[in-house]
Amino acid sequence: MTGITRTVGLATGAALAGLALAGPAAAQEAAGVAPETQYIFNTLSFLVHGFLVMWMAAGFAMLEAGLVRKRSVGTQLLKNVALYSLAGIMFYLVGYNLMYAGVDGGWFGSFAVWAPSDSTDYAALVEDGSAYASASDWFFQMVFVATAASIVSGVLAERIRVWPFLLFTAVLTGLFYPITGAWQWGGGWLSELGFSDFAGSTLVHSVGGWAALAGALLLGPRKGKYGPGGAVNPMLGSSLPLATIGTLILWLGWFGFNGGSQLAMGSGADAAAIATIYVNTNLAAAGGVLAAMILCEILYKKIDLTFVLNGAIAGLVSITAEPLMPSPGLAVLIGAVGGAIVVLAVPLLDRLRIDDVVGAIPAHLLAGIWGTIAVPLSNGDTSFATQAAGILAIGAFTFLASLLVWAAIKATVGLRIAEEDEEAGIDQVELGMEAYPEFGPGLAH
Amino acid sequence: MTGITRTVGLATGAALAGLALAGPAAAQEAAGVAPETQYIFNTLSFLVHGFLVMWMAAGFAMLEAGLVRKRSVGTQLLKNVALYSLAGIMFYLVGYNLMYAGVDGGWFGSFAVWAPSDSTDYAALVEDGSAYASASDWFFQMVFVATAASIVSGVLAERIRVWPFLLFTAVLTGLFYPITGAWQWGGGWLSELGFSDFAGSTLVHSVGGWAALAGALLLGPRKGKYGPGGAVNPMLGSSLPLATIGTLILWLGWFGFNGGSQLAMGSGADAAAIATIYVNTNLAAAGGVLAAMILCEILYKKIDLTFVLNGAIAGLVSITAEPLMPSPGLAVLIGAVGGAIVVLAVPLLDRLRIDDVVGAIPAHLLAGIWGTIAVPLSNGDTSFATQAAGILAIGAFTFLASLLVWAAIKATVGLRIAEEDEEAGIDQVELGMEAYPEFGPGLAH
Amino acid sequence: MTGITRTVGLATGAALAGLALAGPAAAQEAAGVAPETQYIFNTLSFLVHGFLVMWMAAGFAMLEAGLVRKRSVGTQLLKNVALYSLAGIMFYLVGYNLMYAGVDGGWFGSFAVWAPSDSTDYAALVEDGSAYASASDWFFQMVFVATAASIVSGVLAERIRVWPFLLFTAVLTGLFYPITGAWQWGGGWLSELGFSDFAGSTLVHSVGGWAALAGALLLGPRKGKYGPGGAVNPMLGSSLPLATIGTLILWLGWFGFNGGSQLAMGSGADAAAIATIYVNTNLAAAGGVLAAMILCEILYKKIDLTFVLNGAIAGLVSITAEPLMPSPGLAVLIGAVGGAIVVLAVPLLDRLRIDDVVGAIPAHLLAGIWGTIAVPLSNGDTSFATQAAGILAIGAFTFLASLLVWAAIKATVGLRIAEEDEEAGIDQVELGMEAYPEFGPGLAH
Repeated sequence: MTGITRTVGLATGAALAGLALAGPAAAQEAAGVAPETQYIFNTLSFLVHGFLVMWMAAGFAMLEAGLVRKRSVGTQLLKNVALYSLAGIMFYLVGYNLMYAGVDGGWFGSFAVWAPSDSTDYAALVEDGSAYASASDWFFQMVFVATAASIVSGVLAERIRVWPFLLFTAVLTGLFYPITGAWQWGGGWLSELGFSDFAGSTLVHSVGGWAALAGALLLGPRKGKYGPGGAVNPMLGSSLPLATIGTLILWLGWFGFNGGSQLAMGSGADAAAIATIYVNTNLAAAGGVLAAMILCEILYKKIDLTFVLNGAIAGLVSITAEPLMPSPGLAVLIGAVGGAIVVLAVPLLDRLRIDDVVGAIPAHLLAGIWGTIAVPLSNGDTSFATQAAGILAIGAFTFLASLLVWAAIKATVGLRIAEEDEEAGIDQVELGMEAYPEFGPGLAH
Repeated sequence: MTGITRTVGLATGAALAGLALAGPAAAQEAAGVAPETQYIFNTLSFLVHGFLVMWMAAGFAMLEAGLVRKRSVGTQLLKNVALYSLAGIMFYLVGYNLMYAGVDGGWFGSFAVWAPSDSTDYAALVEDGSAYASASDWFFQMVFVATAASIVSGVLAERIRVWPFLLFTAVLTGLFYPITGAWQWGGGWLSELGFSDFAGSTLVHSVGGWAALAGALLLGPRKGKYGPGGAVNPMLGSSLPLATIGTLILWLGWFGFNGGSQLAMGSGADAAAIATIYVNTNLAAAGGVLAAMILCEILYKKIDLTFVLNGAIAGLVSITAEPLMPSPGLAVLIGAVGGAIVVLAVPLLDRLRIDDVVGAIPAHLLAGIWGTIAVPLSNGDTSFATQAAGILAIGAFTFLASLLVWAAIKATVGLRIAEEDEEAGIDQVELGMEAYPEFGPGLAH
Repeated sequence: MTGITRTVGLATGAALAGLALAGPAAAQEAAGVAPETQYIFNTLSFLVHGFLVMWMAAGFAMLEAGLVRKRSVGTQLLKNVALYSLAGIMFYLVGYNLMYAGVDGGWFGSFAVWAPSDSTDYAALVEDGSAYASASDWFFQMVFVATAASIVSGVLAERIRVWPFLLFTAVLTGLFYPITGAWQWGGGWLSELGFSDFAGSTLVHSVGGWAALAGALLLGPRKGKYGPGGAVNPMLGSSLPLATIGTLILWLGWFGFNGGSQLAMGSGADAAAIATIYVNTNLAAAGGVLAAMILCEILYKKIDLTFVLNGAIAGLVSITAEPLMPSPGLAVLIGAVGGAIVVLAVPLLDRLRIDDVVGAIPAHLLAGIWGTIAVPLSNGDTSFATQAAGILAIGAFTFLASLLVWAAIKATVGLRIAEEDEEAGIDQVELGMEAYPEFGPGLAH
């Protein structure tokens, strides 16, 4: 349904949607909706679904603010507002065209500032598969980049300084994300290989996770998090209500994330596909929630709410690679496996002494891998081998390139706040203010 | 405008909208918008309005988290996330078809897992009144079920255990709500009687309220809530900002709740009807707010914010049974009566020693009854007698069936946490964690 | 594209959008989208963008609750819920028709209660430029009035009593805002002069700012805010997470604020214009964030999050007068200047001993002036002289009329709570309750 953006994944999606609905839809569709009306619907889908994904910026900000300690809340909020802003500017200056302009089976597009280019020959645009306002497409793609950067922010919380973090964010959103994005959604080599990632389990969520993992390894854990002899010191998040509203914002935003990735709403088949995507997205999140709850109850006889929230997110990430083709029941199961991954992997990371403050590596990276691997369960045009190839290629590139940049930043301007400042907290150092100045120090934990 | 779902209410709504707009709209409409375009608009209305209603899950979660004591906030959040997840799965497995499949004037539909069924013969779909993606309809109906369950969650807060609550939720969302829903929106006996409930003052809000009331009676009040000699011990909510953002989320979501219940947006008349519904919905909430404020000022010389927030909700519930036909001025008045009900009924419940933690019984059950009774004020096709009959039938069924299930759960796995655990709070028992671990115990109240 | 509402601004906008897209769009558009379909799209744009702006009520409530001290949070929340409610009712009773009915080059419209007036002759409506449901237009215009009133609420926080504040709100939303609105968007004398304010940098944001400034002068600062010898006593806001989610809600809502102000979505050119507006709106906010951060770092070596949040808002306000014509790069710059204004002007206000609790005067009034002045940078149909004339006329009227009303209220029922009550806080006086009753008094600051 679309020309440049997400070419292969899209064409596949639309075609399959047509098949799923049975019948000679194609011809009828072309006849059924006037070209200019199609253009409006497609543009509207990008805008409405785009603002839902933009809203995920608030979701990440609240989730992460709720899961860090009180002393770090202000900085976490600042980083989220700043990264969303910076991601947009970088994607405008470099990212978009690097990802989408003339990739043509290759490795990346061109280095050029993005500029809107619109035509009013709607019939020709429909013919070309690009019947939407170019600015609406840019807006929708931009909010995806920001999502990847948000994931990094959570993992490295409470110890990374603001400006070095933003330096990395600029590279991630201007270069790394667009490059691997070009391989697939830009119509590059990976898409020609037959890899499929409908809305970004790998291209967005795992990319964020890999970049964060590289950073976490170089940054090291928070002071006092791990003691001698494998001891893990729990550092409880400051506010479960914030973490919960953050998660529910993400859930809402995900209808935009997956639904908008149909990239068109100008035909009945596209509208029906979006509706199916909404249902599957919701059911996968529900599956993630219930699986995490049940597993918590079995393992711990209590239900840790943070596992449940990350279970919802993992369910959402899991269905993101293929939200259209699964039956509702399969969607529940795919999400449930995602939820289980969270409960099992969070303690594992602690055993490896990787300090992932908000649990984003299980929820985004591991569930993203699972979701991408699971695509062939419902999408017959894909294979486990190709899916694995895409996961490996994107993972290896993102992890190694990120490691390099993190190391360069560490070696030059440095990454962490001073060790002696960690007790007072990063907010004192970076902001000179407290998130809740009137609420006192509370009890020591 | 639609076939199976909400048949009578809908057909009425669309017809009246046509009348309200005057003129020979019907023929012109059919000619004016191409069938496939109608299909896209109708589907889009279900999706956009559906995601607004989904967002109400966050509204209930925040409202309830703000109105319970700090020690219970985590559990309240968990229950809201869990019930929304479970409601979706139960409605998929049982509820939808029980409510909508082949009710045909009877008492309930069929027992069958829901499956999407789509056609691309858009002209025939328009003819049939079902020109929308079946998945979009499912999504929209599903978020309504979850709303009913959310109401229960608030009333029983701070003392009901998580799993027994979810057991009841499964029955409510899989069986009880769909059965009474079938009577009316599924095209059952009550709809043939002439009962009218546009968006669910009775079918959603009172149903939730009746189920909660039954639970509250069997569960009993929180320990220490009521003292000897009629003493009422105020147990203040933990956070007014959370309660407020929760209420404003509900207000926003209600545009979806009522607007989407037009069930169509594929004609100018339908679009105009939705616009009218938005205006009336907003004005009714405003009326509820101002009435609650003024009444508070008169009675107490202070303005209790929780009354004002519940006044907004009561205003919204009141207009839900008929948001299309009233003039703007009447909408304000209908909402204002709802707001007054809250201020007057909350103390009454305390006198009856019914511990409704969040004030949901006045705001949802009583205002829901008022709103349903008020339908004939603006809708000439209804009568007070028929409205009363519907209220009584649905109320009696839901209350008694719920009482039975609550009693069965109480007699088997039990409902409450142990009395000796209530001081420490339910979060310690069910989650093993605190909602705000770093904020200390605060002052005793 | 529209008849009565925002006539001039609109026609200009649509025409320019057509030019920007190049080509013989006009004829093709009329042919391309059927009249009734146009009507649905236009109505839908008002509704979707309108609910986004309605959501800004929650944004202001949270932002202001986060920026006042704990003792004033409940009252601040109440005022925001109440003003939104009251604004709707006043705009229904007086404001709408005063602003839009028969202004015809003059100073104001007619005094009459608003009533919907709909036709189903869609072709004639298209011809007339008013192909939308009248209720959808009312809804969209109404949420703008509420925005202006929200700005006042923040500036005067912590010391103004609830009912006097609402009295002023009634006058502002029923009379003052509609009158200056009539001058421009109602098709009055200012629009004939050639003034341009696409979505309300001046008509909404500066109007709110001027009204608030007048109030702040008469109300005086909070007790203890300014000491002898120019000492400024910082009174830190209670919750940065609330301030942040409030800001991000505003950011989201602004896509509705600016995007919906295209006032039409029934043609490809309109849809493309809305998409461009989304992009520019987002980039201006991003520019405001980064400029505020960089300037903070340079001036203070720390990054004050409240400056950054107000920087985002100032960026948004700055682009609001002309979100369509600037290139993306210019949008970043316009927003960046807005962000810089905040960092520079907040201390200035303190030096003038004007106690603007939330920083709204820099973010809304000053950035609104800047944004309006900047229109000719990209819109060749405007001039700096005309823009300045509009700013002065609207500013002078709003400031003086507001001053008069504030003075009258002060002289009669009074404005402030008693001085001896300020230590305990306004919540005790007005609500008789605390916003966070279980969180203790915290540390003195």
